[in-house]
Amino acid sequence: MKSYRVAIVGALGAVGQQMMKTLERSSLAVSSLKPLDIEQNAGKQVSFRNKMWTVETSGKGKFLDVDIALFSAGAEASEILAPIAVSEGAIVIDNSSQWRMTDGVPLVIPEVNPQALRSHKGLIANPNCSTIQMLVALKPLHAAFTIKRVVVSTYQAVSGSGAAAIRELREQSQSILDGKQPVANVYPHPIAFNAIPQIDVFLDNGYTKEEMKMVNETHKMLDPNILVSPTAVRIPVFRGHSESINLEFEKPFEIEQIVEIYKKAPGILLVDDPAQLAYPMAINSEDRYEVFVGRLRRDPTVQNGLNMWVVSDNLLKGAALNTVQIAEKLVEMDLISR
Amino acid sequence: MKSYRVAIVGALGAVGQQMMKTLERSSLAVSSLKPLDIEQNAGKQVSFRNKMWTVETSGKGKFLDVDIALFSAGAEASEILAPIAVSEGAIVIDNSSQWRMTDGVPLVIPEVNPQALRSHKGLIANPNCSTIQMLVALKPLHAAFTIKRVVVSTYQAVSGSGAAAIRELREQSQSILDGKQPVANVYPHPIAFNAIPQIDVFLDNGYTKEEMKMVNETHKMLDPNILVSPTAVRIPVFRGHSESINLEFEKPFEIEQIVEIYKKAPGILLVDDPAQLAYPMAINSEDRYEVFVGRLRRDPTVQNGLNMWVVSDNLLKGAALNTVQIAEKLVEMDLISR
Repeated sequence: MKSYRVAIVGALGAVGQQMMKTLERSSLAVSSLKPLDIEQNAGKQVSFRNKMWTVETSGKGKFLDVDIALFSAGAEASEILAPIAVSEGAIVIDNSSQWRMTDGVPLVIPEVNPQALRSHKGLIANPNCSTIQMLVALKPLHAAFTIKRVVVSTYQAVSGSGAAAIRELREQSQSILDGKQPVANVYPHPIAFNAIPQIDVFLDNGYTKEEMKMVNETHKMLDPNILVSPTAVRIPVFRGHSESINLEFEKPFEIEQIVEIYKKAPGILLVDDPAQLAYPMAINSEDRYEVFVGRLRRDPTVQNGLNMWVVSDNLLKGAALNTVQIAEKLVEMDLISR
Repeated sequence: MKSYRVAIVGALGAVGQQMMKTLERSSLAVSSLKPLDIEQNAGKQVSFRNKMWTVETSGKGKFLDVDIALFSAGAEASEILAPIAVSEGAIVIDNSSQWRMTDGVPLVIPEVNPQALRSHKGLIANPNCSTIQMLVALKPLHAAFTIKRVVVSTYQAVSGSGAAAIRELREQSQSILDGKQPVANVYPHPIAFNAIPQIDVFLDNGYTKEEMKMVNETHKMLDPNILVSPTAVRIPVFRGHSESINLEFEKPFEIEQIVEIYKKAPGILLVDDPAQLAYPMAINSEDRYEVFVGRLRRDPTVQNGLNMWVVSDNLLKGAALNTVQIAEKLVEMDLISR
């Protein structure tokens, strides 16, 4: 079995930490780990598979001895560093939004479109968290009944905005419980005990960038014919995005068929037992690899309509796990050597 | 000007307290206030318009000297007490779900269907909180462009479940911030830092009672031809329900027309300025009478489609305020004497 030299760019960030943890548990044979981060973190030690590794700064020359570079350093860093890493021979799997819609860069969820990996040129993009869990849930239904239209409203956790946002939710919550004014830095408004109907910046069409990611990435990965109408909302949850999804299929279906499909679908755990008050919830998704699906019920207001509730750990399947799974899939498909 | 003898049933509950506060600020001439509550609260004093009033227990004979009885004592109490109050000559405006769908009982939002009050027989029902704010927002658009279908996902505050739920969210939040296990009593699962896709009990069709209220009450009050596909979700917010609403109209529209309609619509405040990051939010709705509307944007995935975000204080327009406004409307329409 071949083993691989892996770099993690942004190793000490919220997602970077999860990447290391997920990589540690993965089947990937790692001969060396190179944790890269900003200058002030250089020299710190991280533990990986019972060995300590020293954090270095990123930059030119750092990828010459790297086979796979997992990037979670944000779009700006990725714009500069990813081409450097590719030119130095690494395969880059980038978690930022920088390259997702670039022609020729595969955007991949292993359960959805692994075949897209075949055409990679050294750079592969990891999709947006809210898109990943939605498409893992939609893919098997689309294959069976052909999805025409999706209306989705999200309930997104703060960890999607990084470690500072997690701290901010803690601090704001404590302030409010203590009867003090919450201080907002990461978000434009307090998120504690609130719902903010804005994620990422606004575009000219009145939608946010986060909302348009769900549209555009669905078209790139699953089917350009699926109509997606999104509303992305931040709520005071630490980890685990929830999504209320309304679907309209071309073909008729029975709920029992959907249940059977989900029982066999890869990466999905069906949690749908109203009698036991069992349905997917953010607090149960933490540290779990699955996309949880529940509250399956026919929508009688449209032909072949379905309502459902989909939850997943935004730091894992929504980010770190999917990145590592792409690396595993590249190995499995023998697409790693260049 | 006539003045009225008003009773408040459940005067010390979360909504009852808001009813007193709202009534105090209202234009209604109140000659006497009779606060009614459970036995253990009898004898307590409440302040209303600079006078103290003594809480009594509710029951037979208590409504003989009452013109208007505002009920917020839950469905079970209302089932027994409302007919007694009506038989003793009071006009009952009931905030519970007990009578909402009963034939012959008007279900009323003053901005939506005040004319339904004309046929009252002493008992008037106040609609469900999540329906009220939705229909205040939908009514003027329906009049202009005819709504065919609504897909709505709610983000509901805990205060809708009463004072105990407010305490539970506080206590659970503090436990989690302190690294302890949260204790759940009011809801079947912890609500702090979570999203629970269940409000009220499940029905045979897979929808919850809360969700079907939004369907049935829309049909009773606005138009039985409007198709409503709801998902009701509890989130860790103290006060203010938010709703992500997707609409499909029969007639074509321009966003500018919607803006003009909302600028003039009663009970509505348009907060929709993405450039200034301004949109409705739960934390800004507290103690406000308006239904806040924003994030207006065309939904290009369906003919004549619109997405919007609607927020209101669930204890005020969603409950106490609407109840008091019904009383005011009865006076205005001269429907109070029997």
